[in-house]
Amino acid sequence: MDFSSFLTSLGTSFLIFIVLMILFALLQSKPGNNVVYYPNRILKGLDPFEDGYKTRNPFSWIKEAYSSSEKDVIAMSGVDTAVYFVFLSTVFSILILSGIILLPVLLPVAITDVDGMTNTTSKGTFEELDKLSMGHITARSARLWAFFIACYWVSLVSLFLLWRAYKRVSWLRSEAQKSPDVKPEQFAIVVRDIPPVPVGQTRKEQVDSYFKTIYPETFYRSMIITDNKEVNKIWEELEGYKKKLARAEAVYAGSKTTAKPEGTRPANKTGCLGLIGKKVDSIEYCNEKINELVVKLESEQKVTIREKQQNAALVFFSNRVVAASAGQSLHAQMVDTWSVFSAPEPHQLLWPNLKIKYFTRQLRQYLVYFIVALMIFFYMIPITFVSAFTTLKNLVKLLPFLKSIEKIVVLRTVLEAYLPQIALIIFLAMLPKLLLFLSKLEGIPTESHVVRAASGKYFYFTVLNVFIGVTLGGTLFSTFKTIQNEPKQIVSLLAESLPGNATFFLTYVALKFFVGYGLELSRLVPLIMYHLKKKYLCKTEAELKEAWAPGDLGYATRIPSDMLIVTIVLCYSVIAPLIIPFGAVYFGLGWLVLRNQALKVYVPSYESYGRMWPHINNRILASLILYQITMFGYFGVQKFYYAPLLIPLPILSLLFGFVSAKKFYPAFQHPALEIAAPGLKEVPNMELIFRSFIPPSLSSEKVEDDQFEDARSQVSRSTSFV
Amino acid sequence: MDFSSFLTSLGTSFLIFIVLMILFALLQSKPGNNVVYYPNRILKGLDPFEDGYKTRNPFSWIKEAYSSSEKDVIAMSGVDTAVYFVFLSTVFSILILSGIILLPVLLPVAITDVDGMTNTTSKGTFEELDKLSMGHITARSARLWAFFIACYWVSLVSLFLLWRAYKRVSWLRSEAQKSPDVKPEQFAIVVRDIPPVPVGQTRKEQVDSYFKTIYPETFYRSMIITDNKEVNKIWEELEGYKKKLARAEAVYAGSKTTAKPEGTRPANKTGCLGLIGKKVDSIEYCNEKINELVVKLESEQKVTIREKQQNAALVFFSNRVVAASAGQSLHAQMVDTWSVFSAPEPHQLLWPNLKIKYFTRQLRQYLVYFIVALMIFFYMIPITFVSAFTTLKNLVKLLPFLKSIEKIVVLRTVLEAYLPQIALIIFLAMLPKLLLFLSKLEGIPTESHVVRAASGKYFYFTVLNVFIGVTLGGTLFSTFKTIQNEPKQIVSLLAESLPGNATFFLTYVALKFFVGYGLELSRLVPLIMYHLKKKYLCKTEAELKEAWAPGDLGYATRIPSDMLIVTIVLCYSVIAPLIIPFGAVYFGLGWLVLRNQALKVYVPSYESYGRMWPHINNRILASLILYQITMFGYFGVQKFYYAPLLIPLPILSLLFGFVSAKKFYPAFQHPALEIAAPGLKEVPNMELIFRSFIPPSLSSEKVEDDQFEDARSQVSRSTSFV
Repeated sequence: MDFSSFLTSLGTSFLIFIVLMILFALLQSKPGNNVVYYPNRILKGLDPFEDGYKTRNPFSWIKEAYSSSEKDVIAMSGVDTAVYFVFLSTVFSILILSGIILLPVLLPVAITDVDGMTNTTSKGTFEELDKLSMGHITARSARLWAFFIACYWVSLVSLFLLWRAYKRVSWLRSEAQKSPDVKPEQFAIVVRDIPPVPVGQTRKEQVDSYFKTIYPETFYRSMIITDNKEVNKIWEELEGYKKKLARAEAVYAGSKTTAKPEGTRPANKTGCLGLIGKKVDSIEYCNEKINELVVKLESEQKVTIREKQQNAALVFFSNRVVAASAGQSLHAQMVDTWSVFSAPEPHQLLWPNLKIKYFTRQLRQYLVYFIVALMIFFYMIPITFVSAFTTLKNLVKLLPFLKSIEKIVVLRTVLEAYLPQIALIIFLAMLPKLLLFLSKLEGIPTESHVVRAASGKYFYFTVLNVFIGVTLGGTLFSTFKTIQNEPKQIVSLLAESLPGNATFFLTYVALKFFVGYGLELSRLVPLIMYHLKKKYLCKTEAELKEAWAPGDLGYATRIPSDMLIVTIVLCYSVIAPLIIPFGAVYFGLGWLVLRNQALKVYVPSYESYGRMWPHINNRILASLILYQITMFGYFGVQKFYYAPLLIPLPILSLLFGFVSAKKFYPAFQHPALEIAAPGLKEVPNMELIFRSFIPPSLSSEKVEDDQFEDARSQVSRSTSFV
Repeated sequence: MDFSSFLTSLGTSFLIFIVLMILFALLQSKPGNNVVYYPNRILKGLDPFEDGYKTRNPFSWIKEAYSSSEKDVIAMSGVDTAVYFVFLSTVFSILILSGIILLPVLLPVAITDVDGMTNTTSKGTFEELDKLSMGHITARSARLWAFFIACYWVSLVSLFLLWRAYKRVSWLRSEAQKSPDVKPEQFAIVVRDIPPVPVGQTRKEQVDSYFKTIYPETFYRSMIITDNKEVNKIWEELEGYKKKLARAEAVYAGSKTTAKPEGTRPANKTGCLGLIGKKVDSIEYCNEKINELVVKLESEQKVTIREKQQNAALVFFSNRVVAASAGQSLHAQMVDTWSVFSAPEPHQLLWPNLKIKYFTRQLRQYLVYFIVALMIFFYMIPITFVSAFTTLKNLVKLLPFLKSIEKIVVLRTVLEAYLPQIALIIFLAMLPKLLLFLSKLEGIPTESHVVRAASGKYFYFTVLNVFIGVTLGGTLFSTFKTIQNEPKQIVSLLAESLPGNATFFLTYVALKFFVGYGLELSRLVPLIMYHLKKKYLCKTEAELKEAWAPGDLGYATRIPSDMLIVTIVLCYSVIAPLIIPFGAVYFGLGWLVLRNQALKVYVPSYESYGRMWPHINNRILASLILYQITMFGYFGVQKFYYAPLLIPLPILSLLFGFVSAKKFYPAFQHPALEIAAPGLKEVPNMELIFRSFIPPSLSSEKVEDDQFEDARSQVSRSTSFV
């Protein structure tokens, strides 16, 4: 890619961004689009335009986003979102602090080195941008000291800001957990690996007597986990028919107003997809089915509660401190029996995973790791091919008929600029669902944990495949034999290959923030989908609400893809400092756009009180270490004899990781007791807390209290005290 | 060493053993020696000869030891001792089960291989014993399959028995902890890293208010840890004068009966060691000093309690479950503040180490590890020299004047047989104190933990220096260049060197059990020391009691030296199966002798409920893995093409370690709550429990309750409930 195609790429990206911004300004002011641009506010029962911003100034969102406080974010979108902003602002600050030193110093140092260029390592792609990079410096030059000091500056700034961020997040977490509001999950623990029921006892009696002995005064009740597969199926079927009924009634009512006054009763066929089979009256048919299913559900609920009990249970305590302490204490002498953890939010609990036994979980985990590792390494082959082929020159060599295209200058530059990036982005879109599925297979018991696990896998995937893969793949044709002969030299090879790919990643980052955040803010796709659904599909209020349901921020993919940018920007920060402003814009613009989205659009699907942070912290550290190692390699390539002086840096980073894990991490694993100790606003209603953990399929209106008695225990004699 | 010197060595060892046994039989029957041979029984207030064994049959101890049950051991010597016997019997069983298969199969297979010997790897020491070893097998021979299968047999037997042992120990621990006796340590936790005292509060108020908030109902009191250095010094001085006074009074009383009726008042000089200075009347002088010191102690106690408070405290709970749970729960959001652990027995607590801060402890630990590593590697040099020189032939080469000694056949054989072993044993006797000191430096807070840590260091030392050092060192002259050039080949080098040292280790093991256990049982040294002291030094009952105080089993050195035998025997088990009976005798005889010692002699100085076991387990596993790796190397040396089929063995061992650590270990770190839950025999007397943790230097008779109020809190309003 030469300089002009780089500029073209930047220009087009910017153009798309401007267009998307104008579209956003136009579209968001239309009241009909409120549910697309303000769903979070609407769902919280707030007016979309409060605080006097009713002027619908197309840029007022910037002011609103900028002036919003962390408290607003927590109130509107929870602690997890606030932690995500800590991440964005931390990386932004790192880049700003790095940039204000590196850009004014390194760029002049690089550009004024007249002896350079002959030693440039960016093979064959001699170009203007290279003059601004470290590759332009003469080998062994004293000018390399400037780059050397820059390495230290970036590392120290990163570590300092990461430490502050960890402290901040830790505080945010403790404040949220300390809150005097009664949260059901703070009064419950999950028990797994319950040993087989002794003869003459029910599972419930076993669990109750075990915990009553240990907590005679604070034990409230237990709820045995059941196998809900069957009952969930029936419940979903029932809910489906309820929706169909509502829809049919809406259609019937609609037909009354438009055509004949007595209306047309909607009909449908009972067979596959409503295409074959007997034609029946929809309303009657649905009513029939619903009555049938309600009976079936009730009997299945009874069967489930009585007979499908598993070796896991929820145990409720009438005291927040006791529950916090119980969730982290060893209960049984053998660790693979009665293992406990603090309960997550009720809807986060993955019931089917709770019955998996201790060592089976371990085994599953390693199996999944193995599969993911295979996936990472076998995806590497296609991706290296993609990035090696998708330079137009290579394509023309292989497919001569493309030569005509190459001659049309505009088309050629656009194609050259975008081909590799688009291939990459499409490629990455395929993965997240699979990783979420695999993470669930591990036997992880909570939704938020699954997201964290998937996000970790995705991170390794992107760093290994996209960053390292593209970097090495871009020079694969020329260095394939080197890799084969000296597999140990991957560090110096990576260091050698980095400068050649600087412009690729510059455009990649620019594409990500201009087009990515443009689409994010303008919500073009959800908008179009909503209007299409509204016009042609939705008949009832519920269907309409479903059509504009905004979803959550999607940490499983969002954080790894941000992290890829962190890795890219850090690794290039000293080699090609020009990438720093690009990175800073990515995180600055991201902060602004997502602040708007968090306050107005997305609705978090769970709250884990910032448990994502230790993972984010460790991955930024990993990127930092990768950067430090490649810099060490690159200084070697530049024949800088003092390169070994860089060795303290990765050691310092590892030490940082060790200390921060020791100091902060345990409080992310277990609730600290001092945080559970402060008083509550009200005496907790244990019955409500207990009920909140009953899954919807087991708690339909008609199922009355006494039916649960088989799966839960009697109220303990000493009634609730705070 | 040739065959005859091997037999001489065995013979002399056996002779010494017989002599010691006869001495034991004679001496132990004399009532005057009861305090040497039955101190544990005497201290427990039991008659030395119960159960009708009054016949003083010289061999009755064997029957008594053999017929004693695990319960007897626990009653007389605690769970730690019982766990030590589980270790001895487990290794014994491993060796018996290995031996009954390996000896009848491998010895004939080896001895009947007529083509062998040309390929023997025991360089230059062609001898009779080699015919019985794997070195006698022709390379590539199909006979190697027998040895191959033997490798699997030994490994599987070991793992199976280790699993059973871990289960057993875990059960022993839980039974002991479950006991309904009130144990002070089960009601207390130790808090370290308390943050600085807030303005306007005392340390005591700070601690009390913190724990009262978290445990409003079960918190009893706290005791602030103080810097007792000064007060301990004064107290020790006081105790010293009290002893001197008692001694002087005894001397005075004695002089009344023997010489003149009015007696001679003893006198002493006040200066250095009683040799210089003014001559004074001892009784008057001591009384004076005692009165002086009592006053000084009292004021120092007050100062200590008020002004020398540290950032650590003991916190007492009125409920066993709460204390168990509190000792393992995270209390503060920042882990380096308010860190807790379950209290050990009062006298185990190392007060001076409690004030050390969280990350200082970490740092100290790594520093000590580094020092120990240095020590291990620098001791290697002298030890390799020792073992290379201490063959008489080598000595003669270097010191020609020894030639005359070499010619006296008897002297030569005895010297040849013993020189290296004695050098080794003396060498190893120097180390334990230093390692205990270093372990204390780490900042470890309890006595038993220090012993475990020292024992671990000692284990690495012996295995690396004695076993690997001697093995490689014995052939150091011939292979020194090989090591230098190919440092990676240490495994195959070790495998090659093993057979050459088989007889050395055979004699080493025999020496250890014949002479070692002979001395152990006959207690010759303590007996002589006691009688000397009794005759010339002791004047008072207390001094006499001190003279025969038996001490404890000394796990810090006993277990590592047993472990060295385990390593040696396992590593040679297949190469030279003749070592198996030697090992079996070591552990069988050891079991018998130490059973006697545990029941009658040693008094344990602490009780850690078998926390030593996970360490023992891991070290046996480490020996097993070392054995498996050297066998893999040795099969390679023997050019056995199926050697890679041994690779599953170390993997299996690692897996075993992983699973057993996951399943059993946590219950050794923290008390399981189900074990703390069962009811107690009596309502715990919290005042007594609290008092038991006051160190003797702070609790002299005259210091009354109210003086402690500064270092401990008010009795919590809700008084003790179980």
